[in-house]
Amino acid sequence: MAGSRMKLELSRVVQERSRLGVLKGLGRTGQHSLEIPGCVLYTHFGTVPHLTQDTLHTLSNLPSVTQVTLSNIAEHQEVLEEFKDGFRKFAGLHDTLLYCSLHDPAAPFPTGYTTNKTVSVWGSGGRIELTVAKFMALQKTVQPDWYQSMADGETWQNTSRKRVRKSVDRTLAHLDECLLVHQNSQELKGVKVFGVVEGGDILEERVRSARETAKRPVAGFCLDGLQTGSMEQALRTQLITAVTKELPEDKPRLLQGVGRPDEVLACVEAGVDLFDSFFPFQVTERGCALCFSFDISLDLECAGRAPPAVLELNDDERDTAGETQQSGDLNLDDQTQMTSFEINLKDKRYRDDFRPLVEGCGCYCCENHQRAYLHHLLVTNELLAGVLLMIHNTAHYHGFFSTLREALSNDKLDLLKRRVLRERGGQRERKD
Amino acid sequence: MAGSRMKLELSRVVQERSRLGVLKGLGRTGQHSLEIPGCVLYTHFGTVPHLTQDTLHTLSNLPSVTQVTLSNIAEHQEVLEEFKDGFRKFAGLHDTLLYCSLHDPAAPFPTGYTTNKTVSVWGSGGRIELTVAKFMALQKTVQPDWYQSMADGETWQNTSRKRVRKSVDRTLAHLDECLLVHQNSQELKGVKVFGVVEGGDILEERVRSARETAKRPVAGFCLDGLQTGSMEQALRTQLITAVTKELPEDKPRLLQGVGRPDEVLACVEAGVDLFDSFFPFQVTERGCALCFSFDISLDLECAGRAPPAVLELNDDERDTAGETQQSGDLNLDDQTQMTSFEINLKDKRYRDDFRPLVEGCGCYCCENHQRAYLHHLLVTNELLAGVLLMIHNTAHYHGFFSTLREALSNDKLDLLKRRVLRERGGQRERKD
Repeated sequence: MAGSRMKLELSRVVQERSRLGVLKGLGRTGQHSLEIPGCVLYTHFGTVPHLTQDTLHTLSNLPSVTQVTLSNIAEHQEVLEEFKDGFRKFAGLHDTLLYCSLHDPAAPFPTGYTTNKTVSVWGSGGRIELTVAKFMALQKTVQPDWYQSMADGETWQNTSRKRVRKSVDRTLAHLDECLLVHQNSQELKGVKVFGVVEGGDILEERVRSARETAKRPVAGFCLDGLQTGSMEQALRTQLITAVTKELPEDKPRLLQGVGRPDEVLACVEAGVDLFDSFFPFQVTERGCALCFSFDISLDLECAGRAPPAVLELNDDERDTAGETQQSGDLNLDDQTQMTSFEINLKDKRYRDDFRPLVEGCGCYCCENHQRAYLHHLLVTNELLAGVLLMIHNTAHYHGFFSTLREALSNDKLDLLKRRVLRERGGQRERKD
Repeated sequence: MAGSRMKLELSRVVQERSRLGVLKGLGRTGQHSLEIPGCVLYTHFGTVPHLTQDTLHTLSNLPSVTQVTLSNIAEHQEVLEEFKDGFRKFAGLHDTLLYCSLHDPAAPFPTGYTTNKTVSVWGSGGRIELTVAKFMALQKTVQPDWYQSMADGETWQNTSRKRVRKSVDRTLAHLDECLLVHQNSQELKGVKVFGVVEGGDILEERVRSARETAKRPVAGFCLDGLQTGSMEQALRTQLITAVTKELPEDKPRLLQGVGRPDEVLACVEAGVDLFDSFFPFQVTERGCALCFSFDISLDLECAGRAPPAVLELNDDERDTAGETQQSGDLNLDDQTQMTSFEINLKDKRYRDDFRPLVEGCGCYCCENHQRAYLHHLLVTNELLAGVLLMIHNTAHYHGFFSTLREALSNDKLDLLKRRVLRERGGQRERKD
């Protein structure tokens, strides 16, 4: 593709599938890079919910790529066209790459509105139908660095084979049409297209979609229709493993709609490079704080003793989190339920808990506030609660990804998995 | 009072009533000061709504005194007692004085629950009845630097003379009881009590309340029952003028529940020193941005030409603001209506307005974002909208107070009034 300098440099591939590396030469001037496994930065209309750019940039380990979705942007097309300078400038973003995807990974939307020629996105004003022409006009207005090609991802577990086949065919047809417009567009010179791999839960269709998409001049791949809630992790792993075998080694694979740490680890082992980072936002919106351990600095099991009390979660806390949803549980209906990776600060047990959210966490929230204060902000609906939780959850989540890369680099992936899943020799850890 | 070092140094008194000066020797160590006329910093449970301490401190002109209210705190008494180190530390506040008042000036509450021995505050869990004993126990737990004495402020325009007299009597009785506990309390050594002046709209009762309160060993005075919506400004000015005549020169007067810039100016002229700063929060919550002009650097009228387009408000904008409520209008029922000092960014006229909220404003919001972006954040309910508006509105409001002090210092109060009220020679300004 014209102007392309993006290059994926793999430094390690663990067990033939888990990839460690750096995407280099990103952006129109080629000065950005992005480490994999990693995330794109989840935003609503360009903003990480609750956080100013200034607050956001007090956090370390932030991805260099910001995700915006057409579901947020489409209804503002006219204004953006008038503005002329692209979405990045419109949203006051500085020094970040922009990746434009179709749907918001954290927002469910009605299905059944896809046609052969159109897909629909839902904004605050309702449904907006996108033809390829409108979709591409939007990309010219948004001026992203990467965008996801138009796709039909309406395949869930047990969708009929016929419907799945149609989704693959449509998505390939959309891609070809998008590429045609793209290659003839001066405005999109240097912009990268990610092809979308569909195929529902049918292995042959997944493989066909991957093979066909890989033949097109795309810079990377989005794996769609595999989101949390759509299928069990075992099936997801199997499908992703089959798909990534078909994809070229030198292009990144972004998995849409998966954010739970246990699922992220399983998907990295299946060959995924990039994730959306909507998960910390979902955790924040339910008044929860991420608290799962990913400390791999000490292999305490080798030293013959139990790891330290896992981030101060006591058995009682863990059980409550577990009650709601055990890690690995399948939850087809609701992605917004609490997981075992977080604590619910609205719970009255935290009203007199004067510890930080996570001992040793260096984020602004943990350095300045205690669980009891957060609890009181939440129960009295104070507006700062969301800000503080979003700071911590974002820091914690991107810290996890940083450690994941470190684990791949130092052969500690198994240790990290045990930490995250809180298992030790098949048993769940107990506080000593 | 034991440990007292607080001292009001007046540098100017304009027209025998408007006072310019500095409250010195504040705090237990005496290292803080507060300029008057000024504000205490409005918070919910210790936080300026939406803003972290870090974000807040990017703003200049912030007051050194933070206000918390017992209506927010009372229901958390048990936890604070367990915490032991006072509210400032509990809320993660650094380097600020704490002023504890009874009610939240921005939150209306049901009336009719006051008795001879108790007042009631409303928290998120409902009504909490406070006796003097409970009130003082709370103060010992909160550990403020200043607090407002317990008071019965349930007098509105046209309350009966009998009820008004009772309110004055009760409030004096409460004060005496509070002072008795206070003076015998080791924990409250060095803490300052503000006596509360009541009297509804009855001049003699106002004068009696002021005189009697002034006889007690209080460090300052709260003027209660004069809030926006309770009476017309002319009557308020008359009552305040009568009250401040009775109060000692060397102690500060804090007016509760008044925040509109026009009313602030009138009340400063009547002898008020300090205000709550809930107004920018109310403006933020209705999706509006403060945009009134207070630029007194150039007296453009003397230069024979009209002032510059007042903060880019065009006639159209001004008229819309004016439609809702003209400055000076009385609105007995609703303090939450838009005033003529702000623009409503949800209005569709701002969807393609690519200017900052206020040209030349140095706040984070104005330096990084445009009206159009704020408009889109608001109409799509993005969570950052409140953060950005709160930054601007707080900066704008405290900038206004800073200029008010400058105007008093440089004999420009009349010019400031014309700017704020947007009048020139009796005529409203027009954009040239």
